[in-house]
Amino acid sequence: MDQQKRTEIGTLGEFGLIEHLTKGKKLIDKSTVLGIGDDAAILNHEGLQTVVTTDMLLEGIHFDLMYTPLKHLGYKAVVVNLSDIYAMNAKPRQITVSIGISNRFSVEAVEEIYEGIYAACEFYGVDLVGGDTCSSRQGLVISITALGTGIAEKITRRSTAKVGDIVCITGDLGAAYLGLQILEREKQLFLDNPDIQPELGTHDYLLKRQLKPEARKDMVELFEKNQLLPTAMMDISDGLASDLMHLCKQSGVGAFIEEDGVPIHPDAQMAAINFKLDPITCALSGGEDYELLFTIDSGDLEKIRFLPDIYIAGEIVPREDGLTLHTKGGNRHPITAQGWKHF
Amino acid sequence: MDQQKRTEIGTLGEFGLIEHLTKGKKLIDKSTVLGIGDDAAILNHEGLQTVVTTDMLLEGIHFDLMYTPLKHLGYKAVVVNLSDIYAMNAKPRQITVSIGISNRFSVEAVEEIYEGIYAACEFYGVDLVGGDTCSSRQGLVISITALGTGIAEKITRRSTAKVGDIVCITGDLGAAYLGLQILEREKQLFLDNPDIQPELGTHDYLLKRQLKPEARKDMVELFEKNQLLPTAMMDISDGLASDLMHLCKQSGVGAFIEEDGVPIHPDAQMAAINFKLDPITCALSGGEDYELLFTIDSGDLEKIRFLPDIYIAGEIVPREDGLTLHTKGGNRHPITAQGWKHF
Repeated sequence: MDQQKRTEIGTLGEFGLIEHLTKGKKLIDKSTVLGIGDDAAILNHEGLQTVVTTDMLLEGIHFDLMYTPLKHLGYKAVVVNLSDIYAMNAKPRQITVSIGISNRFSVEAVEEIYEGIYAACEFYGVDLVGGDTCSSRQGLVISITALGTGIAEKITRRSTAKVGDIVCITGDLGAAYLGLQILEREKQLFLDNPDIQPELGTHDYLLKRQLKPEARKDMVELFEKNQLLPTAMMDISDGLASDLMHLCKQSGVGAFIEEDGVPIHPDAQMAAINFKLDPITCALSGGEDYELLFTIDSGDLEKIRFLPDIYIAGEIVPREDGLTLHTKGGNRHPITAQGWKHF
Repeated sequence: MDQQKRTEIGTLGEFGLIEHLTKGKKLIDKSTVLGIGDDAAILNHEGLQTVVTTDMLLEGIHFDLMYTPLKHLGYKAVVVNLSDIYAMNAKPRQITVSIGISNRFSVEAVEEIYEGIYAACEFYGVDLVGGDTCSSRQGLVISITALGTGIAEKITRRSTAKVGDIVCITGDLGAAYLGLQILEREKQLFLDNPDIQPELGTHDYLLKRQLKPEARKDMVELFEKNQLLPTAMMDISDGLASDLMHLCKQSGVGAFIEEDGVPIHPDAQMAAINFKLDPITCALSGGEDYELLFTIDSGDLEKIRFLPDIYIAGEIVPREDGLTLHTKGGNRHPITAQGWKHF
């Protein structure tokens, strides 16, 4: 993008803007019969079940444009939805995107958001098939709906974990939250003294986890390849503590988590200590990691023991045993949800 | 709703609010396998094609809460999406709803919006299967996605009209726009003098068209019953002029419309004259009527001649003949889009 150029959105109009943003893009998914341009898109999911999820991102609540590049924002807005589709053990196929933008944004700014959206579409192999673009009085609003497909018997809910199942976590937790703390700190320093240059250099991993997270497409493919069917699954978006509570509540079970079993990246460990935070608390309550939390039948333990980036974190227990954290020191703490509260 | 009661949204939290708003609601569509509560909803559209559409409504742009009852707003937000599904000659099956609300709204206010949403779901026989509820810094934001199904050969696009086809319109046009003019006038009078009582009594029809429009479910059923397959179709949301231009552009054709063939309700005629507006201009450019604009093969003319509430408005002509209005006085005017401009 040429940073100098500013085209007012009014010069294109709504239909012109949509045409401008979407022209030349080819449909890639074979189930997409018709994309943007009609009253509705047409999809052919014959023989498969469709899964559908939606997320809304609001400026000032879910993102701060002071430190969020627009392209990353577009990318992340797609990823958080695809993460929900993968968490059903399904394959994302199409998305729709609605954007509300105020006139403080130029056409070039909206193009950047769409660059990020299309980059995510390409990486995950999904089609953008519809949407709505309208002017907003105030902040930027992005609402995305994702559709995916799965074989009925393999779609994995969060309500089907059973006592004795093994609790697993992919990747690592807490890094996205610590990335946010770094961005917030640098923002505050900048607001206090605009001459200060941000010190972000050594925090690449944490910032990437916050600004450009990925959904665990690879894991769902790994399950398929290794003929592993989780008994229950969800993505970790609000924080392990809060999300595990949801999974357990809906499955009518309890669980324990071993502190040793919660994967934390060394950079997140370091950053937590620098912020005088407890690393395990960041991992339990941080949110926005978009890793997968899943349970497997204990008989499937051998199938995952040597799979990369999957960690055995605990076990499902009867509901009356509640949710507990077994600390490294041998203590047992009840787990309370301190996940992201939107209100 | 008890007008006196005000429960702060913060007392319920996001998950509590969703649970509160959706509890006790049963799923009614047989293709809905799983509704709200997991990472994604599960739908079984086996053997049918899925159609998907989305619309975003922003406070201050698409609605004014000064004269829009919240229940009507929820109802209309659903209807505008279902209208797009019917315009594909398909049957709506599920919707997802994302809402951004600021803390100036109480739980009771959000309940009213959901009452309207559920009323529309019930009337049209669709399931609410997912969504997102988050706090907004400023205005109210509603983003709805609708999914429908259709038989591949019967799904009707807007790009398939051909020269010689008859142009048809359902219902009547311009009333929603005139309803809006009345509401805006009364708002202005109220702002100038808050003691004045609004004079809305004699405008029931126009106000209903603006505040509680319906989608033409009945028409799609009538087509089916009479074995009529339109050659092209779309809904009239931006105004006949603008929407006909889209249909013609995508079909690579032109069209003429007979002024006599454009249905206008007597109340709309009267109101237009009172506002010193040309009724045909209101009908051509008003928007928000959510009627259907469709074309049929001239051989099917007999099938519609005696169907209620369908009007023959014109004919599809070669592209080079452009878009023209044949006035009652025998003049020919080029049709220009003056539909709703969002920017």
